[in-house]
Parts: sequence; structure tokens; C-alpha cells
Amino acid sequence: MQTKEEKKKIGITFKKYESKWFVEVLRKAELLEYSNVSGCYIFKPRLYFMWETIQNFFNEELKKEGVESAYFPLLIPETLLKKEKAHIHGFEPEVAWVTRAGNKELKEKLAIRPTSETIIYSVYAKWIRSWRDLPLRLNQWCNIVRWEFKNPIPLLRSREFLWQEGHSCFASKEEAEKEIERIIEIYEKVYEEILAVPVIKGWKTEKEKFPGAIKTLTLEIFLPSGKAIQGCTAHNLGQNFSKAFEIKFRDREEKENYVWQTSWGLSTRSIGIAIMMHSDDKGLVVSPKIANPQIVIIPIFGSKEKEKVLKEAEKIKDKLKEFRVELDKREYTPGYKFHDWELKGAPLRIEIGPKDIKNRQVVIVRRDSGKKEEVKVKEINKKIKEILDDIHKSLYKKAKEFVEKNTVNVENFQELIEKIKEKKLIKTEWCGKEKCEDTIKNKTKAKIICIFSEKINGRCVCCNENASYAVYVARSY
Amino acid sequence: MQTKEEKKKIGITFKKYESKWFVEVLRKAELLEYSNVSGCYIFKPRLYFMWETIQNFFNEELKKEGVESAYFPLLIPETLLKKEKAHIHGFEPEVAWVTRAGNKELKEKLAIRPTSETIIYSVYAKWIRSWRDLPLRLNQWCNIVRWEFKNPIPLLRSREFLWQEGHSCFASKEEAEKEIERIIEIYEKVYEEILAVPVIKGWKTEKEKFPGAIKTLTLEIFLPSGKAIQGCTAHNLGQNFSKAFEIKFRDREEKENYVWQTSWGLSTRSIGIAIMMHSDDKGLVVSPKIANPQIVIIPIFGSKEKEKVLKEAEKIKDKLKEFRVELDKREYTPGYKFHDWELKGAPLRIEIGPKDIKNRQVVIVRRDSGKKEEVKVKEINKKIKEILDDIHKSLYKKAKEFVEKNTVNVENFQELIEKIKEKKLIKTEWCGKEKCEDTIKNKTKAKIICIFSEKINGRCVCCNENASYAVYVARSY
Repeated sequence: MQTKEEKKKIGITFKKYESKWFVEVLRKAELLEYSNVSGCYIFKPRLYFMWETIQNFFNEELKKEGVESAYFPLLIPETLLKKEKAHIHGFEPEVAWVTRAGNKELKEKLAIRPTSETIIYSVYAKWIRSWRDLPLRLNQWCNIVRWEFKNPIPLLRSREFLWQEGHSCFASKEEAEKEIERIIEIYEKVYEEILAVPVIKGWKTEKEKFPGAIKTLTLEIFLPSGKAIQGCTAHNLGQNFSKAFEIKFRDREEKENYVWQTSWGLSTRSIGIAIMMHSDDKGLVVSPKIANPQIVIIPIFGSKEKEKVLKEAEKIKDKLKEFRVELDKREYTPGYKFHDWELKGAPLRIEIGPKDIKNRQVVIVRRDSGKKEEVKVKEINKKIKEILDDIHKSLYKKAKEFVEKNTVNVENFQELIEKIKEKKLIKTEWCGKEKCEDTIKNKTKAKIICIFSEKINGRCVCCNENASYAVYVARSY
Repeated sequence: MQTKEEKKKIGITFKKYESKWFVEVLRKAELLEYSNVSGCYIFKPRLYFMWETIQNFFNEELKKEGVESAYFPLLIPETLLKKEKAHIHGFEPEVAWVTRAGNKELKEKLAIRPTSETIIYSVYAKWIRSWRDLPLRLNQWCNIVRWEFKNPIPLLRSREFLWQEGHSCFASKEEAEKEIERIIEIYEKVYEEILAVPVIKGWKTEKEKFPGAIKTLTLEIFLPSGKAIQGCTAHNLGQNFSKAFEIKFRDREEKENYVWQTSWGLSTRSIGIAIMMHSDDKGLVVSPKIANPQIVIIPIFGSKEKEKVLKEAEKIKDKLKEFRVELDKREYTPGYKFHDWELKGAPLRIEIGPKDIKNRQVVIVRRDSGKKEEVKVKEINKKIKEILDDIHKSLYKKAKEFVEKNTVNVENFQELIEKIKEKKLIKTEWCGKEKCEDTIKNKTKAKIICIFSEKINGRCVCCNENASYAVYVARSY
């Protein structure tokens, strides 16, 4: 029987991908809360834990690369932000400006960093003198503000978010190009190995690339909603910024040259993507890699057996120290707890009652599939390790199969319109002209999310002229 | 012989505690850089590493306490910041305000958090309903902006800094009181076990306590400059904020009551304090716990022996994997490298040359004492572990002895004036009246840095009436 309190706390009321489903999952799974500032959200502990997990993984990867972390100021003077023309043109509409401090008007207004190229490169210009100072490769973990005027979506499109941004300088264009490829591979690992999310790799069109870059590599994710979303990007900045900021070095022949630069970022959006990918009508589903707890133990007993069952449950918890385990001793019914932890996305539930104790076993239930299994206590650690691994793999596989099943090759515009309506991910060809890119966008409400190949012999899906690129087209967030 | 490049890069030119010495150490040790915004500084990798070390240690301690991390927004609406009167009164003069976004004037201006009580407690009010929701204890790592108009000093008084802030709610005043005592103990560990800095424990006077608190515990550090500095604080907020923000709970008897709160913070200032405490006329000195690298290997060879010595140096480096080691292969003279790593504060230097290889030994030189020692290669790991431990202890001991030697008991005002002139740390007694506190400040330029005891039978150093408190008085940053 449900108590009053239990009844109040009902589950997910929207179906997956109904418009309010995602926000309901985030809030009812107690991951995220709204703040008094529209578009700025609160990361509750189990959500922040996911970000820390990504940070730890990524820091390890950076260590192997030899990239160190640093910290640069939050506030950027207006003149500095405006030094690279394409850059400020891209970011100006969404910059938050500090104009006052205490009771005083500032002489020059200060931007809250929408990204840190300008503040970082103004300093790189002082640090770099000769080829001996190269490569210079730094990373920073920080908060970012972009004052989006579109409808904000928690994690996916928020006005403040957390990210890492890497900024490297090299002596040659080739090194810069290699860097962004290597970084994109690390990002791919974050998505696949930590978040269980398959990605689509490519690069952005001229129109969609980062303001100030010569090339932007991207990972795009195709979600079960039939929409794609940009997962993270790595930019080859060429010499655009080094020329604007006078970052020059003397090479081994004492010849002065501008450095070649890259910048690359992965944000808390990645977690939003993983949650949107895997969660369901019952609530949160995520990989055990980022879930906290990974396992919840729910004791089941009549009034006489309480002490005995709780004691055994504590023993099981102790035995499982290698995992993140929570023993739910709250005074609710088991049924309520099952439901509550489905909502909160604990990947595994362990049920233990008097009969299980007698049989020296527990019952294990998977959040992803609902599959139930009796496991002997003596085998429990080995078995759980296997199941958690399998949950990660299954989530990835299911998502990957969805993408593959919903990817279609399209050769003419009429078909493109139809397939977009059917919420498909389109593989097609494009001449490379902005006019055709715009036509696709205007006529289908979808866009070229990335280019994935240059070697094309067919015809542009839009103008029917010779194609230059193979591209993915989809609706996108 | 020094090359041109070497000569340019001269060492520390100021004596310890001359006014520009601290900044020179920070910059020449390549820890910190100025930015284009006055009072905002750049943390270079070896400085940021120190902060990460503190974060890791503190996170482990919080885990034991059961405190989890979360993240709350950077921007606070003006109305929210103004809800607790003492609080806004204390912070208003130094708040940086966002008034514009893109090309639009905001309807309500937004403060960049000078501390997060108001934004966090507006949400706690929604989360807390009953005694079951208590205690609520969260921590966040973030950046803070306080637009100081006094002369900024890197790390010690900067306009942006990094910190952690903890925010707890309890059902009783006693629990809140215990919390701040426990947290101050953890902070003491950070200073003593990580930074090798001895602290003075006490609580703030009514005038100096946190705006909105009923009591502020503090750790103060007395530096060899003869000035004290606040190291970190933990506040018992009583019910001041819970009343302003309506954070109420029903207790076990269904009676409604306001929660009792605490907040507590430790910032990057702590690193500045450690650097100022231990560094010297040759450059940076810090505990091996936060130094990166801890050990630098400098190979010494004539042109014929280069290959052999470098090979052996690499072997030593591999052997020392449990430490943070750097092998300096740069094409500079050994003398230049010795000097450079003294400047940068590597706690240990290993010299290895042909004679050492023959004798299966290396020469180890301590940064703190300059002491030189020959160590057999087969004993090197054990020996280095001992030396690094001893460096930490020696730094702590030296600082502790300095404080003890310079602490004096004072019973009358004339003596107080004299001892402050002699740059002493004063132990004395005080009646508790603000008038006397002000007189001390005005006449000596020193202040009551903290109260350390209530049970006093003597007389106030200022007015000669009955004393209520034993206090420390010193000049301070």
C-alpha cells in the first residue's frame, strides 16, 4: 500500500520524446533543478558526479598526451574579444557583459567568457618566442556563459555550462591538423567508453564552423527523437588568431612565423545527450560508468524478519565495496523503492528477502532490460561486474542499431524531404555551395550536420551539379 | 658560461618580504601571469597543479564526512542577493554586475557570485520539507568574483579566485556548531599536511565576522613578514538566512521550525600563503606534497660522455616513477639549470655525472636547506621518500618555530604599540567592546585577528576594564 508521501511522488508522466519528457526525467531523477535565472541550472550531486567521472577520464587521457591544465580569467575586456573579426561576429549576440562593479561604472565593459581563445591567446603572445616554446598545449576546466535567446533546454542549450577547453600552438599546419584528429579520438572514447553513446564523425561546413577557425571537426549524435545534436568540436584555427594576436615564433632557421593553432571543447551537454539517448518512460537510464549508485540494495521483509534481513543486506553491501552501492533502508514499501530507483536510474537493483537468505542468493534486476536473475552470494562480485559491463555494451549496441536502422541514402531532393519527415538520418551528396546548404535548411528544416568525405563522384542532392562532399543531413537541436 | 638567453633570465632580484618579492617569485617561478584585467590572474600549470592537489585531498575528506559536490549558477539576481540584509550590506561594495546580454539591457541586473549563500538557499527552501531531509550538506568548487578596490595582490587579494564553498542545513544549533568545528579541523589538515603551514585557530569578533553569520571560525596564518592573513573560515549562520529564505522543516513532532545553517570556504589564497611562508631569496620553496615536479634530474657531462650519462639519467627517472620527476635535457649548462630549478622550487635536485655512474650513486640536493648528499642508486627510492617527508616536516617546523619565537604576551597599550612595531604576534586580552577594537586598529594599524578563548580573568589591553576574551593582535594583509 502506498503512503500519502509515496503517492505524491509519482513517476514519469510523459512518453519518451514528448516535449516535456526530458526535463521531467532530469528533475524527477533528482539530477537537476531550475534556478532563479532562466537558462541557468543546478547540478545536483548525482549529476555533478557524472561530470567528475568525465573529468577524471579526460584528465588521464590528457596526461598521456602531455597536456597540462591551467586557469585563465573569467572576464575578457571588450577590446580583446573584438580582435579576431570572425570570432566576435559569431559570439557578440550572446555575450553577457559586466558593466558595473560596486557602485562604479567600469571604464571598459567586460565579457563573461563565451569561450577563451582571446584571453588565452593574448597571453600566449607573451610566452612564445622561439620554436623551443612549441608545441604549447594547455587545457582548462571552467564555466562558460552564452546568453542564448532561443528556448533553453537544460544541459543541451543552457546559458551557463561547464566544459573543458584545450588551446594548442604548433610550428606547422600539419601538427595542428593532427592534434584535432587525436583530440576527436579522445572525445569519441568519452562518448563510447564512458557514456555508451555512438557518434558520427565529420567536419563542419564553412557556414557552420567555429567563428575564427579554418576547419572544425565534430562528433554528432543522432538521437531516438530523430534529431541530431553536436556532441563536441575540435577546431583548426590556422593562423587566424595568431595573426590577430601577434603570436609569432622564430623557427630553427631564425625565421619569424605565426604559430598554427587549435582549440577544442567538450561540455556538460555530453551528459544531457547520454541521458536523452538511453532514458525511457520509467525515468533515467545511463551507463553504470557514470551512475551513482551503480547498485541499490532493497531489503524485503515482514515485521519479524526485519533485523535479520537488514543484517544480511549490510553484509552484501560490504562485500560489494568495489562498486558504488547504496542500501535503501528508508521506511517505504519495496514496491515504492523499486519504482523510485527506476526513476533515478540505478543500473542494478538487488532484492534480498528471507527466502533468498535461506538459499544464499539474491535477486538481481537490470534497469536497462528489466531482466531478473537469481545469483548465489558467493558469485555475486564476479557476476555483477559482468552484468554492469554488459549493461554498458547493451546500451551502446541498442543506440548504434537505432542509428544504423534509421540511416538512409538519398539521391534526390524530393526523397530528402520525405525522409526528413520520417525522422531519418540522411546520407547524401552536396556540391559545397552555401546556396544549396541554405535551400536544404529552408525547405526541410533539417541541415547538413557534417561532411564525412571529400571523394565523391555523384551529384548534389539540391542542385544536381557535381558533388564535392558526402554529408549527413538531419534535423537538429 | 652563460648564453645570451640564460643571462636574460636572471633570478630573484628582491629580498624576501621586500614589497615586490612575492610577485617576482610567482612570475619567475612560472606559476602565475598577469592578465589584461587588473586583479585577475592566470594560473599556469604548476600552480594549477597545487590547487588540484588540494582539491583531491579535500574531496577525500568530504567523502569521509558524507558531503557530496554539486554546482549552482554563477549569476545571482539582484533581488535574491539582497534578501539577507547584513549579507548584502557586506558584499554590495564589491559585486560585479552583469547588466547587458548581446545588445539587450537586462530587466534585472545579475551579480557574479561573490559567494553563493543566496542562490543556494533559495533552492534549499524548495528541497527541505521535513526532518527526514536533514542534514543537507553540499559542497561546490567554483570561481568567485569580488571587485576589490584595494591594491590587488596575486592569490592573496584578487578579483577572481577559485574556492570550494560548503553549505549545510541542520535541525539544531548544536549540529551546526559541531559542523564548523569539524570543517575547521579538515582545513587545518590542508594547511598542515598539504601546505606545511602552521595555523592559529580562533573565531572572529562581531565586527569582523561574515556578513549574515552568528559566528565565524577562522584559521589565521602569521607570516615571516610580521603580518597575519586569514587562511579560511567556517560560519555558523544560525537562522539568519533560513528566516530570510524561508527554509523551514517539520520536526519529528510535526512542529515547523527554521533550519540551522553553516557555510565554509577555502580558496586559492591558501596556496599564496604557503608560497609566501616558505619561499626565499632564490625563488620558490613549497612542500613536496604540492610541488610538480618533486624531483629534477640534471645530467652533468663533457661532450664525450653525453650519451652514457643521459642513458643512466633516464634509468634513474624510470626507477623513480612513484614520484613526480623531470629529467632536464635542455641545452643549458648544469649551473644554469641548478639556478633555474631553485627559482622554480623543485624540492629535490638529483645530479648525475660520469663519476657518479662509476660509483653507482647520485648526488641529491635539497631545495629547502641546500644540503647535499651522495646516495647509492640501489637505495634511492627509500632515501628520497624519507627526504621528501623530512622537507615537509622541516618547512612546517621552521614556520612553527618562527611563530612561537615571535609571539609575545602583552598587558598594556604602550607595550602593544611597541610590539606591533617590532612585527610581533600579540597575545592579549580584550573587553569585547567595538570601541576598544577600533582604538587598537587606529592607534597601532594592527587588528584583533581572532579570539582564541573566552575564559579570561585579566583586563582589556585598551580600556583596562574586565576582559572577556583572549585575543591575537597583529598587522594583517
